[in-house]
Amino acid sequence: MQHERPVQILIAPDSFKDCLGALEVAGALGRGIQRFLPDAGIVMVPMADGGEGTVESIIHATGGKLVRVGVSDPLGRPVESFFGISGDGQIAVIEMAAASGIELLEPGERNPWITSTAGTGQLIRHALDRGCTSFLLGIGGSATNDGGTGMASALGIRFLDERGKPVNPGGGALGALRRIDMSGLDPRIGQAKIRVACDVTNPLTGPEGASVVYGPQKGADPEMVKALDHNLARLARLIDEQLGIKIDRIPGAGAAGGLGAGLMAFLGAELVKGFDMVATTVGLEEEVARADLVITGEGRMDRQTRFGKTPHGVALMARKRGKPVIGVAGTLDEGYEELYDHGFRAIFPILEKPSDLAYAIEHARELLERTGERIARMISLSR
Amino acid sequence: MQHERPVQILIAPDSFKDCLGALEVAGALGRGIQRFLPDAGIVMVPMADGGEGTVESIIHATGGKLVRVGVSDPLGRPVESFFGISGDGQIAVIEMAAASGIELLEPGERNPWITSTAGTGQLIRHALDRGCTSFLLGIGGSATNDGGTGMASALGIRFLDERGKPVNPGGGALGALRRIDMSGLDPRIGQAKIRVACDVTNPLTGPEGASVVYGPQKGADPEMVKALDHNLARLARLIDEQLGIKIDRIPGAGAAGGLGAGLMAFLGAELVKGFDMVATTVGLEEEVARADLVITGEGRMDRQTRFGKTPHGVALMARKRGKPVIGVAGTLDEGYEELYDHGFRAIFPILEKPSDLAYAIEHARELLERTGERIARMISLSR
Repeated sequence: MQHERPVQILIAPDSFKDCLGALEVAGALGRGIQRFLPDAGIVMVPMADGGEGTVESIIHATGGKLVRVGVSDPLGRPVESFFGISGDGQIAVIEMAAASGIELLEPGERNPWITSTAGTGQLIRHALDRGCTSFLLGIGGSATNDGGTGMASALGIRFLDERGKPVNPGGGALGALRRIDMSGLDPRIGQAKIRVACDVTNPLTGPEGASVVYGPQKGADPEMVKALDHNLARLARLIDEQLGIKIDRIPGAGAAGGLGAGLMAFLGAELVKGFDMVATTVGLEEEVARADLVITGEGRMDRQTRFGKTPHGVALMARKRGKPVIGVAGTLDEGYEELYDHGFRAIFPILEKPSDLAYAIEHARELLERTGERIARMISLSR
Repeated sequence: MQHERPVQILIAPDSFKDCLGALEVAGALGRGIQRFLPDAGIVMVPMADGGEGTVESIIHATGGKLVRVGVSDPLGRPVESFFGISGDGQIAVIEMAAASGIELLEPGERNPWITSTAGTGQLIRHALDRGCTSFLLGIGGSATNDGGTGMASALGIRFLDERGKPVNPGGGALGALRRIDMSGLDPRIGQAKIRVACDVTNPLTGPEGASVVYGPQKGADPEMVKALDHNLARLARLIDEQLGIKIDRIPGAGAAGGLGAGLMAFLGAELVKGFDMVATTVGLEEEVARADLVITGEGRMDRQTRFGKTPHGVALMARKRGKPVIGVAGTLDEGYEELYDHGFRAIFPILEKPSDLAYAIEHARELLERTGERIARMISLSR
């Protein structure tokens, strides 16, 4: 870490959930570092793992913008939604939860028999209308189990019953599905590159499938789970027979109530790791290569951080380049020390005295600043 | 901080009050450091500032031992007490609170009119009997306001009334004092070097004196405070007239209910800063000179730490030698960052997640270990 030039520090945290966005976290750490190292070169790359915050991260990194549009919510009602467009206008960043997410419904409204991903398809169409040719989708937090048929319908694909009439929206109506008519698909989709952030590996159906694993938390009782699973199996069979794609067992096909399968089968999308998708888009690896030291973090870090979370991804990338990585978290919990074997040089908590979660959240900004200063003071011990 | 040889680390914390002794704190930090830097040279010097823990600190540093003896408590009842003897048998380390402390009394028993420092004098006598020639006294936490007359009586000095009879114990009886008879003073005191840890600067009497400032917390009501102050003024006048020592206005004379004055006037003791007394005895400066890095700390660090607390003393000593100092605390509170201007390179909290004080105390050992490892990981960033 000895340099003649000022130290170059990359700050690439995820958000602190229910507390601060990734950009705010990075900003606070950066201010603290600058208090002690005013000459340090500090680059902030707020990160995300394909879930909440992904749009913000990519907008920040590319100098893009947020677009607000009205679409259909999971029950077909109008809802204010949004997506991001990169600075060059080419890339649309869509979080399915912003149109088809379970948080949009009251607990009593949750019903995967009838909820639809149509709003997600509408977001894609809005982005196509704005000239986007590349799509990044985060698909966590869905309220649906429709195999992506709602999304596909919104882009012109028709799902027909035995009388040639469109089936109703929702996973329940797929029991009547007989034919998939691709002829009306928006032709711009054929030119588009679509990547989907997906860190789960569930197949579409069966005991590890979308309906069995995620159906209950979306409001399905055991009987409905069984019927939904049966319906998705029918969808997979028809996709195989009519589109020539064996989708059922592909890892991630069962993500987001089968939206993973639908995006692959109907739109030719590619499933990628959420962290990789964001990292590639924001140019994280280039920034890591330029840095002398990398700081990352998340609201909580523990043993689970190793499984697809942002700090772990940042640490592996930095280790590959031989750059030291420091983690910062509001809560360090069971097993966080195992991360020391996965690229982390050190991990800092931010709390300074006995305090409850509400205090931590309220004071997170200043605690992060002081943690940034603490880190700066330690790294400059050698300089 | 670049070295070919293994890094040399001095760990010199105070105790974490109501939680861990200084030696336990140092041990936990040291184990954590060794997890990451098994080759580091680690020297542990548990510190104290002349208050609680002073005996433990000096015993540890000199390979000494603890001696348990029975003496009189502040009300003249028998009580189990103790003092320390250095490894060479020369130095006695006495905490007055172990014989004449307010913690030895129930709240309802607190009464500076009658409480006496006789037990402290008995501890000195026990140490003389064991051949000690040098005395270190910590005088915090007293229950007394007797100007050290009880202590002096236990060593043979007589305090006589107008009929030539000894006055009763306690600050109240000093109103009858007419003559101080030094003839019976234990002759070994003349050969002894007595240093008293004293970080307060109160004179013996007056608005800043022992009775007014500390009398109320020892159980004196306003009227008693007035009488006690009057009595100490009489004592000071007699000391001046009969011993030729103007004691009243000497800073620290009012410490421990005037025990400060009594130790100076009757035993020829010298008042010194508590930290300096301990640091000199344990050889802290030599260890600082050998170290590449110094770690200190206390249960709480805040703005007050600058006023005579151990971590501040350690930091100043290290700064004088150009050695970086890192602080560690269970609670970092208001103004701790001001310590960055007083020799501290960085200060680490130990908590890792929202938690209450009971959790912090229960898990202090492992939290300190992990903080030690965190520090080791950061200092080795450069190596």
